[in-house]
Amino acid sequence: MKIAVLHGSTRENGNTEYLTYEAVPKEKATHIYLRDHLIQPIIDERHSKEGFPEVNDNHTKLIDQMLEHDILVFATPIYWYGMSGPMKTFIDRWSQIMRDPSYSHFREELGKKKAYLIAVGGDNPKLKGLPLVQQFDYICQFYGMSFEGYVLGEARKPGDIKQDKAALEAAFELVKEL
Amino acid sequence: MKIAVLHGSTRENGNTEYLTYEAVPKEKATHIYLRDHLIQPIIDERHSKEGFPEVNDNHTKLIDQMLEHDILVFATPIYWYGMSGPMKTFIDRWSQIMRDPSYSHFREELGKKKAYLIAVGGDNPKLKGLPLVQQFDYICQFYGMSFEGYVLGEARKPGDIKQDKAALEAAFELVKEL
Amino acid sequence: MKIAVLHGSTRENGNTEYLTYEAVPKEKATHIYLRDHLIQPIIDERHSKEGFPEVNDNHTKLIDQMLEHDILVFATPIYWYGMSGPMKTFIDRWSQIMRDPSYSHFREELGKKKAYLIAVGGDNPKLKGLPLVQQFDYICQFYGMSFEGYVLGEARKPGDIKQDKAALEAAFELVKEL
Amino acid sequence: MKIAVLHGSTRENGNTEYLTYEAVPKEKATHIYLRDHLIQPIIDERHSKEGFPEVNDNHTKLIDQMLEHDILVFATPIYWYGMSGPMKTFIDRWSQIMRDPSYSHFREELGKKKAYLIAVGGDNPKLKGLPLVQQFDYICQFYGMSFEGYVLGEARKPGDIKQDKAALEAAFELVKEL
Repeated sequence: MKIAVLHGSTRENGNTEYLTYEAVPKEKATHIYLRDHLIQPIIDERHSKEGFPEVNDNHTKLIDQMLEHDILVFATPIYWYGMSGPMKTFIDRWSQIMRDPSYSHFREELGKKKAYLIAVGGDNPKLKGLPLVQQFDYICQFYGMSFEGYVLGEARKPGDIKQDKAALEAAFELVKEL
Repeated sequence: MKIAVLHGSTRENGNTEYLTYEAVPKEKATHIYLRDHLIQPIIDERHSKEGFPEVNDNHTKLIDQMLEHDILVFATPIYWYGMSGPMKTFIDRWSQIMRDPSYSHFREELGKKKAYLIAVGGDNPKLKGLPLVQQFDYICQFYGMSFEGYVLGEARKPGDIKQDKAALEAAFELVKEL
Repeated sequence: MKIAVLHGSTRENGNTEYLTYEAVPKEKATHIYLRDHLIQPIIDERHSKEGFPEVNDNHTKLIDQMLEHDILVFATPIYWYGMSGPMKTFIDRWSQIMRDPSYSHFREELGKKKAYLIAVGGDNPKLKGLPLVQQFDYICQFYGMSFEGYVLGEARKPGDIKQDKAALEAAFELVKEL
Repeated sequence: MKIAVLHGSTRENGNTEYLTYEAVPKEKATHIYLRDHLIQPIIDERHSKEGFPEVNDNHTKLIDQMLEHDILVFATPIYWYGMSGPMKTFIDRWSQIMRDPSYSHFREELGKKKAYLIAVGGDNPKLKGLPLVQQFDYICQFYGMSFEGYVLGEARKPGDIKQDKAALEAAFELVKEL
């Protein structure tokens, strides 16, 4: 089972990354840091005659890489009670992928994968992160992905996550295929 | 009471806009279309020594404009069960505004405002849009904004929203100050 | 299409009933007032050898009545952010019905029905009633019932619901089959 | 810090109890089994002239016992995506307690307490139990109780909970005051 971790943090070595490595050590997976890639925001052209224009960025390269794996771990800091902007932008563009004839099997392919969510926030994330978990569940349902589990961690300042023993333990146990 | 509407759609004259004009006619408010403005994604530098670098875009201009109003209506299509990328990026950057000495009253100022949410989606939004409503509620709670109401509309193809009579009626009644 | 309304209020002619009659006038449906019927709490015997003991109350009579209709409207005051105790007890006992050989088609039968929810609360129900809506959605999903819509009304003291114009209008439009 | 555990299970020694003893061993707390006590359903008389009639059951005795403790652990099986009927009935009756002159300090007293939730279900409880967690959070907010944490366990048949290692570990760490 090949594992890919999609990191939505905008900071290097932040709390979310720390918790995520507890779940999926660096050497056990392909770690993709969305911040290192140019991803344009979506412009919704689903209903225009010309369809979506080609976009000159790294998005399809990332999609290709993602599709080569069986298990997808989405790791994001909680920004304003949702996923980070970079991760949102990455996922928003899936709407475009679904209209792309070169990716006609995108939905079906995702439907074969297992997904996990790791999210870290500073404002009571174990409660206020629940809507994010529910959204992620809806995304998985849409694609038929199996949503296998999630961990919510609490951290405000750099390094705080080390105090959240419960989250660290839960992360360590999270990915059953490891 | 001055009203500002913040539009998160990436398409002009889409379903979300149609529903929003039902709630707040064009001439009754300042309508701000986020898609017309350059807004850079946030890079989280809350914890770096230098703080956030200056960003060369339209974000603070939009913030200034927003703060001049008493009532804020957030209108967004539902993308993947959350707000649109442009609206997420706009709000994510509020974290930077809060660290900006020129905006030391930002949180307090927002705390005096009333907020409304209008969101339109194609996949059972009256249920699957609820996590978005809850996130928006948490955002309002953080700033002390009074969350006065929301409308969820259903539409898939252009023009579909005209069939959602319940949403149109609810939108028409939404903003009590009109 | 035959409509049954299941009323969970413990008070007669309360706010929830008022709003519900706006959605389903008395003469247009079978109105069942759970408070008028003896319904014992469930005792979970799913896993005991003897199975569930026979219970001497009105529950199966109500189930029979419910199953004769095509559309089920669940109307409940919001007690502590959930459905009322009587409605909860009524639904909890469905677990027993599912083990009863005389009701082997219970789940399948419910799966053919359409369901609506009407709920009225005093503490910000349009936000704090959302978990109840989500629970109800999960119940519908379990049985394969089609969850067609819901209305959340706000009322604290008797008669207050008359001020919630938005809920009254939404209730009036709620049941599409009327 | 004195701990009371309120058990909402209707079965003895079920999965919820097993998980709960992992969090709070028998000898470390007062364990109250709601099923052993007669608790009448609420009849809403908040708005009748005579107020609530006296009810001849064990409810106030349980309330007295609950109030003698500093930390309250609510342990319930998940029935139809909500708390069990007995626990719902127990909490519904708090509305009556609040109108009882002998309990004029009820809300204030609860506001000094810390609360935990343990819930076990068979149908994807780590996702479908989230609305229950949110409801419990609203209950805590109403009283000003500090909601300190929750654990959701998965179990369908008797003994299944022993397979949910993540829940058992999380339960073991749950109550910080132990």
